Amino acid sequence: MTITLRSDVSATLDADNTAGSDAKICQAARVSTLGSAAAESGEASGLINYLMRHRHGSPFEHGQLSFLVEAPIFVAREFMRHRIGWSYNETSGRYKELEPTFYTPDRWRPLVQEGKPGEYQFTQGTNEQHDVARWSHAGAYRWSWGAYQEMLDAGIAREVARNVLPVGTYTSFYATANPRALMHFLSLRTQSDEATFRSFPQQEIEAVAVDMEVAFAATFPLTYEAFVKNGRVAP
Amino acid sequence: MTITLRSDVSATLDADNTAGSDAKICQAARVSTLGSAAAESGEASGLINYLMRHRHGSPFEHGQLSFLVEAPIFVAREFMRHRIGWSYNETSGRYKELEPTFYTPDRWRPLVQEGKPGEYQFTQGTNEQHDVARWSHAGAYRWSWGAYQEMLDAGIAREVARNVLPVGTYTSFYATANPRALMHFLSLRTQSDEATFRSFPQQEIEAVAVDMEVAFAATFPLTYEAFVKNGRVAP
Amino acid sequence: MTITLRSDVSATLDADNTAGSDAKICQAARVSTLGSAAAESGEASGLINYLMRHRHGSPFEHGQLSFLVEAPIFVAREFMRHRIGWSYNETSGRYKELEPTFYTPDRWRPLVQEGKPGEYQFTQGTNEQHDVARWSHAGAYRWSWGAYQEMLDAGIAREVARNVLPVGTYTSFYATANPRALMHFLSLRTQSDEATFRSFPQQEIEAVAVDMEVAFAATFPLTYEAFVKNGRVAP
Amino acid sequence: MTITLRSDVSATLDADNTAGSDAKICQAARVSTLGSAAAESGEASGLINYLMRHRHGSPFEHGQLSFLVEAPIFVAREFMRHRIGWSYNETSGRYKELEPTFYTPDRWRPLVQEGKPGEYQFTQGTNEQHDVARWSHAGAYRWSWGAYQEMLDAGIAREVARNVLPVGTYTSFYATANPRALMHFLSLRTQSDEATFRSFPQQEIEAVAVDMEVAFAATFPLTYEAFVKNGRVAP
Repeated sequence: MTITLRSDVSATLDADNTAGSDAKICQAARVSTLGSAAAESGEASGLINYLMRHRHGSPFEHGQLSFLVEAPIFVAREFMRHRIGWSYNETSGRYKELEPTFYTPDRWRPLVQEGKPGEYQFTQGTNEQHDVARWSHAGAYRWSWGAYQEMLDAGIAREVARNVLPVGTYTSFYATANPRALMHFLSLRTQSDEATFRSFPQQEIEAVAVDMEVAFAATFPLTYEAFVKNGRVAP
Repeated sequence: MTITLRSDVSATLDADNTAGSDAKICQAARVSTLGSAAAESGEASGLINYLMRHRHGSPFEHGQLSFLVEAPIFVAREFMRHRIGWSYNETSGRYKELEPTFYTPDRWRPLVQEGKPGEYQFTQGTNEQHDVARWSHAGAYRWSWGAYQEMLDAGIAREVARNVLPVGTYTSFYATANPRALMHFLSLRTQSDEATFRSFPQQEIEAVAVDMEVAFAATFPLTYEAFVKNGRVAP
Repeated sequence: MTITLRSDVSATLDADNTAGSDAKICQAARVSTLGSAAAESGEASGLINYLMRHRHGSPFEHGQLSFLVEAPIFVAREFMRHRIGWSYNETSGRYKELEPTFYTPDRWRPLVQEGKPGEYQFTQGTNEQHDVARWSHAGAYRWSWGAYQEMLDAGIAREVARNVLPVGTYTSFYATANPRALMHFLSLRTQSDEATFRSFPQQEIEAVAVDMEVAFAATFPLTYEAFVKNGRVAP
Repeated sequence: MTITLRSDVSATLDADNTAGSDAKICQAARVSTLGSAAAESGEASGLINYLMRHRHGSPFEHGQLSFLVEAPIFVAREFMRHRIGWSYNETSGRYKELEPTFYTPDRWRPLVQEGKPGEYQFTQGTNEQHDVARWSHAGAYRWSWGAYQEMLDAGIAREVARNVLPVGTYTSFYATANPRALMHFLSLRTQSDEATFRSFPQQEIEAVAVDMEVAFAATFPLTYEAFVKNGRVAP
């Protein structure tokens, strides 16, 4: 029985299902004449910065970014707590047999937490700790996958057999959001010294967020610049 | 002092700020393997009809339609009660002087309601009733506009002067939604003999909805067909 | 024909339809062990302040405040742009004949705006300006109400006749929210020197917000204290 | 190393954090004069039935029910896909060591699925299948728990060690909703011959829904009666 261990996560922009631009955000703001001096000057970057600084969030909702995320279930669990402005479809363990692919921390994943709850700092961990992690993950994943397969072979329904699969099992989901909702996600799921409000995301969801941030910066460059400039606070 | 009387409303699709397709909806459903027999057959219309009939609504959220609506304030008021999956930006009477354009029912607008609250039927009304409507509207609009201008001329703030403007004054707004939210809107704001749940929308918002329905049918033809076939119930 | 002119607005807490407390917010946070040092110490104010400062917003959603708001239509229009965590029911001009009660700025309402769009400062205005405002409002309201009544008398439907009623006409609505949504509303609809992000609300909606803030402070005193202490930023 | 196997799930109403009533729903409807004949008659059950039948959903949002749910992670995963009108706080595997309590199907849980995807029917399964299920669950849970403990003992962070814990691990969460959102949940997460739109929920989330339905029926009896009478379609 072969299982696959991975340490990476990813969010891939579906450019064919993405809409909007910095210009469309300005267009929506101008119908209200929000920031009318900047609006009239015709300068998009000034208008967008004005909207961001004054927390006029609604113009940033007229756009869409759609991503395919590949990550373990525990990341999907954190992700789907974001309810507003987000839409999801995820691989179903009821309708389909899952794949034997599991998340394992690699050598660069800090293993030891220090400090107060909610503000943990992480340190690398010793070689011994990394060995314990690696073998504990591999062993538990193999056993769980074996139990899953044994139940499926016995004719037991997928929705029952999957009970034994760990939250480290990989899943896939489409996550679609407007720019405002995406900025809110980024503000909570990345850690940055430039942030007005510091966040302490788990490293694995932060890696998904970083992929999204790169795609966002490329698609809405002026909006992204204003977001960073204004302390990474979603408007 | 010239005012403009109009009897039309409109919703214009911004094709440049629209994303998604029947194919993208299928793609989102297939990641879950929802309706897997239809999914595997590769037949989009069968899959979409399956999703609609079984009220699997989430795949219909991965898309965007953006409209510019021109309509009187009383239509905007009803419209913006739709909160979920909709984003808005509207002309602001605080930031900008409004235009002297007002809604008046034309000769084809039935004026007389009969029947029970919530299920009103309308009849045409007599010529005399149409005359009363026309002159009452025109007179009140002229007077209100005059009072508005008088206050602006006296240096009074726009946000105060606008108090006197009627809900028949035209406004403009961008309204952006995903297909699921749009179907929910259409199910409540159009009247159809094919609807499983009958609605009794006011005629003026229904005219906006009809424009949106035409654009929706052209952009997501299989989804639209399944919506109609399944009794115009949003999934 | 008698009309009533008013200058006040109000939000009245329905104490019989209100739920939750600072203690319930703590209970929700403790199931996650958010802020566990504070959680374990049993000290509610420390825990709530921790949640607010770190923007852990979800525990603040497990509660409800319900208000009856009496205010002009233009206030209801601004209010109902708040979509998330808010529920509304408002007097319908389709189903019911409206009352002849209208909003007029009193002598203490500053009439003249200065400064840049979005950051207007207001000054009092001269006696002459107040006279213009008063008579322009009264005249337009009387004329509009007359036209409305004339159409109703002629048998024209309420939903058509109301077109001519101004946005200064009073309306009533129930507005129900959780504490998190209410704090978001307060952060945008009040102006305060203690606010991290300054807002420039229209005075009439701010008066509604002040009523709500007083009721909120009495119902959730520790949450309110933490909200103010942390710069009036909704978590 | 002792682990606990359970087969039950539960939702317990927090009566101290619940607000609203059939009377409050009527009060909200009456401000709009929705269903005014019924409204005027003073008869609550007629008014509520009218609102439900005509899908006037907003009055059903002015209330709150708060539950503590104890169920395995795979149930929490399905539950939290309900985004609108729901608030959640769940035990965090980042902040706290989880408990060794795991879900196992009992002898009455049908194990074998037949029929088409999305419309599965379940049959009981043989004694042999039940034995395979029981021992596969128990073995995988024990091994996973051992790996989790081994990592914690080695000083590895909880948020890493939990990767190996199965989706059958029990979790606790507060779930707070308004009556409209709760009815929407019930319509999708229970199976009933009286339902206009048939749903095929997984049995374990249905058991949570049944607990909620009982509490809902006791708290909002007229609303509940109208919900059932109108085909269990959320308004």
